This record gives sequence, structure tokens and C-alpha cells, in this order.
Amino acid sequence: MSDRIRSIASGDLDLICEHRERMFAASGHDRDSLTPMTDAFRDWLRPRLADKTYFGWFIERDGCAVAAVGMMVIAWPPHPSHLTQDRRGYVLNMYVETDQRRRGLGRRLMEMVRAEAQALELDYVTLHATRQGKPLYERLGWTPTAEMGLHLTPPLPVDESKTGKD
Amino acid sequence: MSDRIRSIASGDLDLICEHRERMFAASGHDRDSLTPMTDAFRDWLRPRLADKTYFGWFIERDGCAVAAVGMMVIAWPPHPSHLTQDRRGYVLNMYVETDQRRRGLGRRLMEMVRAEAQALELDYVTLHATRQGKPLYERLGWTPTAEMGLHLTPPLPVDESKTGKD
Repeated sequence: MSDRIRSIASGDLDLICEHRERMFAASGHDRDSLTPMTDAFRDWLRPRLADKTYFGWFIERDGCAVAAVGMMVIAWPPHPSHLTQDRRGYVLNMYVETDQRRRGLGRRLMEMVRAEAQALELDYVTLHATRQGKPLYERLGWTPTAEMGLHLTPPLPVDESKTGKD
Repeated sequence: MSDRIRSIASGDLDLICEHRERMFAASGHDRDSLTPMTDAFRDWLRPRLADKTYFGWFIERDGCAVAAVGMMVIAWPPHPSHLTQDRRGYVLNMYVETDQRRRGLGRRLMEMVRAEAQALELDYVTLHATRQGKPLYERLGWTPTAEMGLHLTPPLPVDESKTGKD
């Protein structure tokens, strides 16, 4: 088997959307309930793939994408974690095919993320971890923040028994 | 004593910066080390106060500002917490004068935040809680997210013994 890392390209639109939907399904969301999000996300992603404000990497094995991650630079007010920068990195849509997990693919992608963040001279990067991803991020030096959220419309139900399954 | 709630205005630039610096100082950061952030934040805030993309409220008591909070609508990809919206609310710079805490001022400001978020038809709002603020947010229905962060440059030191002090 030969692994190859390549950059995300415009033609990956549908595959990234598929990965995002599977990622949230693996967090316990009913897949059908995610369809409106995926449709809206596709419209959101299309121009950002084209202008490369959304970027990232795939790992292909024997020509098939088996893992991927996306990244952005987001506007943020200067903060103790990035004193004079008005931006931070953001990592999203980390996805590893179910039968390819625990083989270091996520780690390889996160090493690409870190190198790119350094190349962009970012002081600080954030992400939102799934339960499955959190141990990897912790091993790589990521720590929980104090972010909290408030739902003003009822959130999608999460079925904890489905967490970690596709 | 008479309390009055008023909207943030352009002339509040320096006061908001002062509150932000005190807020982070109360989280255990050395105040002097925050100066570069405050200077960068002032430059960041000035145009956003003018065009009202940063907005919020002060509570004045007998003409003196004793508490404040800021708010923004930030761009975000469609997500299970806001299925078809490409934005979320963000609350920042909650500050209550030390001798005015535990008197319901924070709650009144967060009620303004909630009402404004509903008026803007936002599905979801986030914030980053200080240790002092977290119990209030929990009482108002806010829950922790799974956000994690990675520092690529050494973060400012935090002195836990100073947490909660101005």
C-alpha cells in the first residue's frame, strides 16, 4: 500500500461535504437530519475552495482518499493567545475512514496543519473535537478552551449510543 | 441608586479596551503583559464600533458605567448547531466592576444578549467564559463546547493566584 498526501482542490467539493456529514453522524447525529446542513455547507464551501480560503489535505491510499482535514484562517480580535494578531487558525472536517483509524493518519494530517500554521506565522489555532478525536489532539499538545454555547433554536438530537459509528 | 442600560457607542472605545484588559487581568494575566493586546484590540475595535459590527450594552449607575458586554455576528460554516446559517453570535468583553459583582448585573446584560440574538434570528451563540463568569452562564443555559486550542508561540503566563482579582 502506498500513501500519498495531496492538497485539497476544487474538485473535492462533494467528498469534503460527505466527510463532514459522516464526521457529525459519527458524533451521534442522525444522518438524514444533517442533509440541510450539508446542502448549506456545500454552498458555503464552493467559493472558499475556489479562492483557497478553505484549504487542507487528503491522504490517498492506492488512489483512494482515506483521510482528510480542512483549515482556515479566521478573523478574531487580538487576544492573550495572539496578542497582536487579529486572526487565528481553525481546523475542521478531520475525517479518517472507519477501517483506517488508529493507524496514524490523523496524526499525519495534524502535523500538516501545524506546519502550515507555522508557515502562516499564526500564534494560535483552534478546533472542535469529536469524542474520538480528542485523545489524539491532547497527545499533540492541544488543550480544552473555556468556550460555551447557547442554542436559541432546539439543537439536533444526539444519540450517544451511535457516537463513534458511521 | 438608579441603573440605566444603554447601547455601546463609538465614544466608548477606551472604556471597552479598559474593561477587556481588566477582564483578562482578572483571569490571572499580568496586566502589563496585556498592553500589546489592548493596543492591537483598540485598532481592531475602532472601525467595528463605528460600523456597529461590534455592539453591546453598558449598565450605568448614577451615570457611571459599572458593567458592560459586547457582541458580534461572526461568519461560521453551517453546522449542526445552526444547520443552514453561515454565522453565529459571539459574546465578548463581559465585565462587571469588582464591587458590583453578584448583584445581577451580568444576568441583566446576558438577557440583553439573548434578546438581541433572538431579534437577529441567530440559532446559536458562543462565548469564552472566565472562571468567575461560568456559573452565571450555566444558570442561563449555556453549556461547554468541545473547543480545543494549540499555542504555536508561548502563551502569556497565567497566575492562578490572581484569578478573580483586578
